[in-house]
Amino acid sequence: MAIYLSRKEHFNAAHKLYNPNWSEQKNVEMFGPCANANWHGHNFELIVTVKGEPDPDTGFVVDLKKLSTLIRSKVISKLDHKNLNLDVDFMSGKMASTELLAMEIWKILAPEIPLLSSYARLYKITLYETPRNFVEYLGE
Amino acid sequence: MAIYLSRKEHFNAAHKLYNPNWSEQKNVEMFGPCANANWHGHNFELIVTVKGEPDPDTGFVVDLKKLSTLIRSKVISKLDHKNLNLDVDFMSGKMASTELLAMEIWKILAPEIPLLSSYARLYKITLYETPRNFVEYLGE
Amino acid sequence: MAIYLSRKEHFNAAHKLYNPNWSEQKNVEMFGPCANANWHGHNFELIVTVKGEPDPDTGFVVDLKKLSTLIRSKVISKLDHKNLNLDVDFMSGKMASTELLAMEIWKILAPEIPLLSSYARLYKITLYETPRNFVEYLGE
Amino acid sequence: MAIYLSRKEHFNAAHKLYNPNWSEQKNVEMFGPCANANWHGHNFELIVTVKGEPDPDTGFVVDLKKLSTLIRSKVISKLDHKNLNLDVDFMSGKMASTELLAMEIWKILAPEIPLLSSYARLYKITLYETPRNFVEYLGE
Amino acid sequence: MAIYLSRKEHFNAAHKLYNPNWSEQKNVEMFGPCANANWHGHNFELIVTVKGEPDPDTGFVVDLKKLSTLIRSKVISKLDHKNLNLDVDFMSGKMASTELLAMEIWKILAPEIPLLSSYARLYKITLYETPRNFVEYLGE
Amino acid sequence: MAIYLSRKEHFNAAHKLYNPNWSEQKNVEMFGPCANANWHGHNFELIVTVKGEPDPDTGFVVDLKKLSTLIRSKVISKLDHKNLNLDVDFMSGKMASTELLAMEIWKILAPEIPLLSSYARLYKITLYETPRNFVEYLGE
Repeated sequence: MAIYLSRKEHFNAAHKLYNPNWSEQKNVEMFGPCANANWHGHNFELIVTVKGEPDPDTGFVVDLKKLSTLIRSKVISKLDHKNLNLDVDFMSGKMASTELLAMEIWKILAPEIPLLSSYARLYKITLYETPRNFVEYLGE
Repeated sequence: MAIYLSRKEHFNAAHKLYNPNWSEQKNVEMFGPCANANWHGHNFELIVTVKGEPDPDTGFVVDLKKLSTLIRSKVISKLDHKNLNLDVDFMSGKMASTELLAMEIWKILAPEIPLLSSYARLYKITLYETPRNFVEYLGE
Repeated sequence: MAIYLSRKEHFNAAHKLYNPNWSEQKNVEMFGPCANANWHGHNFELIVTVKGEPDPDTGFVVDLKKLSTLIRSKVISKLDHKNLNLDVDFMSGKMASTELLAMEIWKILAPEIPLLSSYARLYKITLYETPRNFVEYLGE
Repeated sequence: MAIYLSRKEHFNAAHKLYNPNWSEQKNVEMFGPCANANWHGHNFELIVTVKGEPDPDTGFVVDLKKLSTLIRSKVISKLDHKNLNLDVDFMSGKMASTELLAMEIWKILAPEIPLLSSYARLYKITLYETPRNFVEYLGE
Repeated sequence: MAIYLSRKEHFNAAHKLYNPNWSEQKNVEMFGPCANANWHGHNFELIVTVKGEPDPDTGFVVDLKKLSTLIRSKVISKLDHKNLNLDVDFMSGKMASTELLAMEIWKILAPEIPLLSSYARLYKITLYETPRNFVEYLGE
Repeated sequence: MAIYLSRKEHFNAAHKLYNPNWSEQKNVEMFGPCANANWHGHNFELIVTVKGEPDPDTGFVVDLKKLSTLIRSKVISKLDHKNLNLDVDFMSGKMASTELLAMEIWKILAPEIPLLSSYARLYKITLYETPRNFVEYLGE
């Protein structure tokens, strides 16, 4: 028996898409205005989905307040009002794309969810860069 | 061949999270303000997803008006402007969590969908308690 | 010179519409399912709009973090996860309608806004009971 | 390793639900106001989801600008400000239901996505007819 | 003392922008794809705002159920699943623009609101043609 | 006779709140994480409202396509994928607050609207920095 529980959080961050191994010209060709040297930014929406069995005593897969606290302390605090290329340790040396950011958030949260409840596993990371562009990652 | 068709409905209800087998103190420790003795409430959003093959004569998996009528008569009428702990027969004796409510809604609708169309089965119940907290249930 | 700055906050509460001076029957006739004895509830969205001149040193009419802290400490803390009829001192003896709640929120916040900034005045309270029902109050 | 990338586009179109093999009366019985002879219409929202591996040089599954350009040139340009029953070649002879439209959009885009990136495949077409009615198609 | 109460309703309709006094060529020049001979359509969102004083016995400016019933019977029933150019008596001989439609809706509802409550007057009609295009009308 | 027509556009930009006349310490005290040296960013939503009389030949206050083109060429092109502090000529020497940005957008668009139609004037600039924080400016 499994049910999926999701919590949405948000953060505001700056980034640019820029490959340091490429010439300025190639970066502009590939990334267009997203390569703007002086950065741009987004209101990101992050949805964390956990899968598990409800605890009969609480009716919860996990306690949503604990889940929210976990996401804020391990992820949001490192991303909110930050520069994804310069300020975020786990993005160092990586392209600041929504795809790679979602995969790094997975790596941080996957080992933490079972500590909230032995009934629960991380199931999916959904990350909206804009209301029209988003990625989903379910682990390898 | 399968396609998924979803219909969103809504209801407004009161509830509290309170385990009668626990002391008042333990309830407050576990559920915080959600255990408020005098209740609180939400605008719930319910999405019912059915899976099937389109009927070539109509182009429909199921007739959306019939699906909406079914959801309203079997589910919404029992939940809207109600107290989930006190007024809802199928939640009696259960914790009034979003997880358990979604699972009970599944039990009500799963046998009804094939009566709408022999091409269709219930695929998923999605239930938003707030725009930031939601659950999904696909059956056991 | 004036500009309007708005901050949206939310709270979840239970209520019923019930006039204790009327018979049970008249209450049901007037309020229908909203008079359900066991309550129902909503995810309320509250928008507080202040009017003022931007401070040239900050570019702000008021500091949004201070505005948010004020709204949460004076209003949200008294309404969130509460019963509007039973738990809220400033609604005591009043009908728990969205109209009257918005007017009481105005009374609480109007004297506080000029303390945040001498440039600012409370301009409007907007209160959504559901995404389809809302009120606006601009003072008498 | 796979990640899912989605792009949302929109189009405004007229249609009616009408089976020419049926009598006027049977059409009205089956489709009600959706069979109105003079048409009605919707703001459709289309979400195209591709599945793939991020390119390490760009961090992208596919370039979202190329994906958006593809969707607009192959799909939106044929549907926006059009009549789904009369103006759209690939809907000719088919019921103008959301289900069948989503399946035709799949057929158009599925062979095109691998041309954007050898890492990517079309994964899902999601089509909202209204905010409360939508379909999802993942291929046969 | 005044407070503003709003109710949102919706309807789906087809239309085209076409001036019969102009040549086909001039219509295309002026209205582009909006002049498509075979129509296009939208999910319109209509917000009706009334202004008044809350009745102390109910806490209401007007009863929202009565307001909703009024809007549906006098306006939505004439527009939903209809063609604005062909099917709607009060738009006959007028351009089917959002501006003119909002003004006609005002004319219908303005005399009806005081019949709901002697405390209330129609204050504003807001009409969304798409989430990005909308008009507001407050009377002449 | 007047009606209000609004068009919503969006842009993604980086900024920081930082007063160069203040010490680093005072900037952090006043602006907190918004003063982050390496910037942060937002998906801004801009709503431009014009006031006018509908042209009887078109039913339009202004042609929405011309209004959209104007906003994009004069405003969005200067802000989208840019740094508000470094890249935007009309924000040079000003605090990059939502308030001051909205007022500068007014200055750019106010003289342009009457060129679209002699019936129309700029009425309001609404600028969302996040879905919960927004400003409105109606001119001095």
